[in-house]
This record gives sequence, structure tokens and C-alpha cells, in this order.
Amino acid sequence: MSVASRAPDHIRAIMPYQPGKPISELAREMGLAESSIVKLASNENPLGMSTRARDAARMALADLARYPDGGAFALKAALCRKLGVKPEQLVIGNGSNDVLEIATQAFLRPGCSAVYAQHAFAVYPLATQARGARGVEVPARNFGHDLDAMAAAISPDTRIVFIANPNNPTGTFLPGGDIEAFLHQVPQDVLVVLDEAYTEYLAPAQRYDAIAWIERFPNLLVSRTFSKAYGLAGLRVGYGVAHAEVADLMNRVRQPFNVSSVALAAAGAALDDEEFIEQSAELNRRGMQQLTDAFVALGLEWIPSAGNFVTFKVGDAAGVDRALLRQGVIVRPIAGYGMPHWLRVSIGLPEENARFIAALKQALA
Amino acid sequence: MSVASRAPDHIRAIMPYQPGKPISELAREMGLAESSIVKLASNENPLGMSTRARDAARMALADLARYPDGGAFALKAALCRKLGVKPEQLVIGNGSNDVLEIATQAFLRPGCSAVYAQHAFAVYPLATQARGARGVEVPARNFGHDLDAMAAAISPDTRIVFIANPNNPTGTFLPGGDIEAFLHQVPQDVLVVLDEAYTEYLAPAQRYDAIAWIERFPNLLVSRTFSKAYGLAGLRVGYGVAHAEVADLMNRVRQPFNVSSVALAAAGAALDDEEFIEQSAELNRRGMQQLTDAFVALGLEWIPSAGNFVTFKVGDAAGVDRALLRQGVIVRPIAGYGMPHWLRVSIGLPEENARFIAALKQALA
Repeated sequence: MSVASRAPDHIRAIMPYQPGKPISELAREMGLAESSIVKLASNENPLGMSTRARDAARMALADLARYPDGGAFALKAALCRKLGVKPEQLVIGNGSNDVLEIATQAFLRPGCSAVYAQHAFAVYPLATQARGARGVEVPARNFGHDLDAMAAAISPDTRIVFIANPNNPTGTFLPGGDIEAFLHQVPQDVLVVLDEAYTEYLAPAQRYDAIAWIERFPNLLVSRTFSKAYGLAGLRVGYGVAHAEVADLMNRVRQPFNVSSVALAAAGAALDDEEFIEQSAELNRRGMQQLTDAFVALGLEWIPSAGNFVTFKVGDAAGVDRALLRQGVIVRPIAGYGMPHWLRVSIGLPEENARFIAALKQALA
Repeated sequence: MSVASRAPDHIRAIMPYQPGKPISELAREMGLAESSIVKLASNENPLGMSTRARDAARMALADLARYPDGGAFALKAALCRKLGVKPEQLVIGNGSNDVLEIATQAFLRPGCSAVYAQHAFAVYPLATQARGARGVEVPARNFGHDLDAMAAAISPDTRIVFIANPNNPTGTFLPGGDIEAFLHQVPQDVLVVLDEAYTEYLAPAQRYDAIAWIERFPNLLVSRTFSKAYGLAGLRVGYGVAHAEVADLMNRVRQPFNVSSVALAAAGAALDDEEFIEQSAELNRRGMQQLTDAFVALGLEWIPSAGNFVTFKVGDAAGVDRALLRQGVIVRPIAGYGMPHWLRVSIGLPEENARFIAALKQALA
């Protein structure tokens, strides 16, 4: 009997996460120059990162033979100043993906369940399955979370409920008041993971402060990332904020050096550059208008999005995706999210958006 | 009932890994200048990293807003050239710590066990416990692995056996022939994780090629790191080599973007700089002589080490450690490894070793 055949069934059944196609991979496959390719597939910040973050990253290169500070003293201090929390409430992750994984490692095991919405971020079901726990997918309402149905889906064996706001890949948004009302419905021994990876893109009228709720709801974990608006996806850093008791458990299963020195330094510096975040959000608003105007002109349906991406309906999404790839434009097919007729496009620079629109017109013709 | 109290008992019982004290932390605690502190606590390369790796890391800073290549195409190609393996045999980890964690995630669950040696690397019991599996610690023989006893400790529920060669923190070495004989004793459905984090420091006469054994022993996983001789601890990158079927399972539980772009680039470049590795190993040999000469002069017992560190006996290790810290010298207490009378010191630059020796003399006086 082979060693692989002895791995637990729930591991053998995992279908790995399908990331956006890297530019280098498409270049190899199609024989294209990398510089000719437009990638709008992974909700990355088209402005790159703030110069403060870049300077801090460059400084950190001087001392790479040393292990990073596993306690992330400086980054935690910066987060505490910004968020008004205590260091012991923080879990620093290798991207917020790591924060989500750690939550499942700390709270799930075979015999438990986790609740999440249809069309929600793929890591929720994947991480749940990797722990041998049962995933409970609650049907979406208008492509977004149906919070009442999710509260009703919680059973005695439920240990985690995942809420993404805005949700990826649909971009749907839940008003803060709805989430607060939901927290009142969830038993206090069930962890609510509120994934706010795209929160920096919210319009001012949409903003709410989930971190302030933790005092009243010690079963709330808010996860955020430096991979989206902060433009540090390549470095892998995110964070979770929770009650100190929850954060302590998560830090016990966290790999002691899960975040690199470069990421710690860049994230700390990025946090202080609020102007860069405003600039990124403003570029995003204009790009969203540019793309949705094009969808109107092309007669395409799309889902109103609060993130830095928008999902639109093309019917034969696989065929349109192939036609876009041939033109050197990478977007994200989301058949794996139960949406085989839709594609997700990230908001790029105005010229990248224009290139996508032109390629889409040709693909649809 | 609080959410933390509902976490599995095996999670609540975890005592987190105790890393070497960061220089910045000691500087804060003692009011010392960081530049005055000598850290010989984490088996880091005192030469830093190769200039090729640094140049590659600097280049990678240009494109940090993009996600890393989760498939690690370029690094895998470089490893395949060097090791004579196929890309599908590789698992790239966020340090080899991540490779070890992934192995436990893929193969352990409650009801299973993992076997490891007394005084072996702390991550083996920690990761085993985090999966809710049972850890079986086999008494050491002369501070090293007792392979016959380890083979005998394998029971029907055993899924993983961990072997560290050289072992950390004791530095003990097993000849390749002994490990090969051990592989013949292990049932083929039990994964043998051979942790070779320090393999680049082996003397020429000690070398063996474990990767060549994988064809005959498809239950063998060899893990290696860029954190030690390659000097990239701050970036977090390591790798595992295994049968393709084993690597495939591990890649299913691997976080899709577990390694940063900077780490991928630097590791690929570091791999080609064999001169730097030779230089690092030579510096290590001289430093080991410098330290063990001092132990002889001081009448201290030490364990002959094949790594870039050496463990020595001082009796009141906690007291000597405090006395060293007051002098700005950080070494590693290893009471957590069941060795309360010993300290581990990493080999540094000649002047760092001298500073340690002088501080040790004073601490013992």
C-alpha cells in the first residue's frame, strides 16, 4: 500500500485552488512577450505599492540572513496605533489566506462543520476540507450572502462561519448594520470570520468599523490583507484582529516565522501611507465606471461590485476566456465558483481597462 | 461558553515554539544598542547571503503588487537541474518549517501517530500535536537518533517518522548508510520525513544522496531549507522532494501563494552560487574549531556537531544564559528540548565567536 493512499480521504479529495494565470505562464504558452500581456485576473493593485513600502522593503534586504521577528513587534505596534487594539489581539499572517487557514487549524477538526455562502471565496471550503471538517454551503441571494439563511444553517457542530465583505468573486456588499445584526444571531461559541480583504475599496458611505465590535462579540475575527489596496501581494502579509483569547489560540498554530522580514517592514510602512490608499481607491472608482460603461454598451449583465473587480456574464465564458488569452488578456474564469457563464475582471489602469474592453469586443464578435 | 473554549483540546494544549530572542527585543529589554549585540541563537549564516541572491531579491522588488507564481516555475526548474528530479516531485515551502507542517497536514489526523527522537527539532512534536495526532518520542542514544528503536516504535497507526540529519539542537549525525538501512525497516505506507536543514555543512566524507533513494523508497520526503547555509532565513523558503504522488497530496494542502516573489527569486539565484556555500561551510569549520578549542580550555563538555552550531554543558544553563544576555550575547537555552543544563551556540564570524567566548568565561566566573 502506498504512503499516499494512506492519507485521509478528505485530503485525497482536495481539488487545489486555481490561481489567476501568471503572466510568465501565458507568455510561455502563447509565445507572447510578457510586456504585451495585460493581467486583470488576481485583483492586484495596478498602481503597484506605495513608495514608502518599497523603500522599507529595500532597507530590509540588508539583513535577510536573520530570521524575521516572529512576534512582529514593529508591525503590531503600527497596527495597534491605527486600529486602536492591543498587540495580543493580533495574528499576523502570510497573507490573509494564512489567517483564514490558521483559523481552521485552530477551531476545526473532523466531526465539526463550517458555514459559508455559495459563490464565496474558494479558500473557505478548501481549508474546511483540509481539516476534515464538513462544509455547509448556504445558497446565495442575488449572488451575495443570505445572512438569515446562514444563521439558520448553524448547527451544534458548527465552529466557524465565514463572511466575506465585499465578497470575492461576486463583489457583493453587506451593510455593516446587517453584519452586526447577524452577530447577534450567532451563538457566542461559533467563530465568525469576517474577511475584509477588499475593505479599503468601500465607498465612504459604505464604511463600518467591525473591529469595534470585537469587545461585544468576542467570537468575531476580522481578517484583512496587504495584498489588495496596499499592493503587496507578492510579499504575502495580512492580519487578523480578534479577542486576545482567540488570537492566542491562533498564534499557537501559526508557523513561528510565517511572515518574511521584507513583508513585515513593507507592511508597516504601507500602513502609514493613507494617501496611496485614497489614490488607489479613486483610480478604482474611475476604472469601475470605465468597465461598467463598456458592459452597458455591449449589452452585458454584471454584478454591482464594492471591490476592485467586477463579474460579468458572457454565456460561453470558457470560450470568451480563451479568446481573451489569445489576445494576451488574462481575466478569471469562475466556473469553479458555480458561475460557468461569468468572468471576473480586475480593475486595472485606464489603458489596461481599454485593452481589455477592446479584446472583449473582439472575443464576443 | 467562549469560542476559545470550544477549540479542540489538542490545540488548547499547544505550547508555542520558542524562537531565538531577536536582537531588537534584547536591545529594548536591556537598553543596549542593537549594533553591540551578538546573536548566535538561530543557526543563521554569519556571512549573510550571496550577492547573487541579494541582486535577485532587489530585482524582485519591482513587481510586488503581483501575486507570486504559486507554481514556482523558475525555482522548480533550477532545483530540477541541480537535483536531477522532476518538477512534480517538489513542494516549495515558506521555509522548510512549512514543508514539515504541510506533511503533517496531509498525512496526520486524530487517531494517527508520528514518531520522532528525543531532543529532535521542536516543530515535529508541535505540528503533530496541532493535527490532533499522537506523538511518540523515542529516547535518544548519545543525544542522537536511535534508529532501531525508532523503527520498533512504529505502530499500525503511525503515518510519519521524522529524522533530522544533522539533528537540531544536538548536531548529531547519522551516516547515510544507517538511514538507508532504516528505510528498509519502515513499512512503505509510513512517510519518512528526512529533515536535511543543515546538510550543506556536512564534511565531504559525511555526504550521501538521499534524493537518489526516493525512486526505491517512494515513502521518503527529503526537506531542505534556504534559511541556513544559503543565508535566506529572513525570506522564508525551503523545499521538499518526494515521489510525485506524495508531492501532489502535499501541494493540495499547501497555501497557493505560500512563498513570496522575493523569496522565489532569491532562492533560485542562491542555488547557483556554489562558491558561497563552500565559503560558508569553510567559515563554519574554522568557527567550530574556535569554539570547541575554547570549550576544551574551559573544561566544558560539548556534543560533536555536524551543523553550524554546537551544544555545550554548563550546569546552570538558565543562569549562564542570563549572564550572557546581560553582556549582549544571545545563545539558545534548550530546556524545552529536555536539556536544561545545556546551551546551544551558533557558529558566527571569528570576532563574534571570540566575543561569545569572552562573555562565557565571564559568565562562568
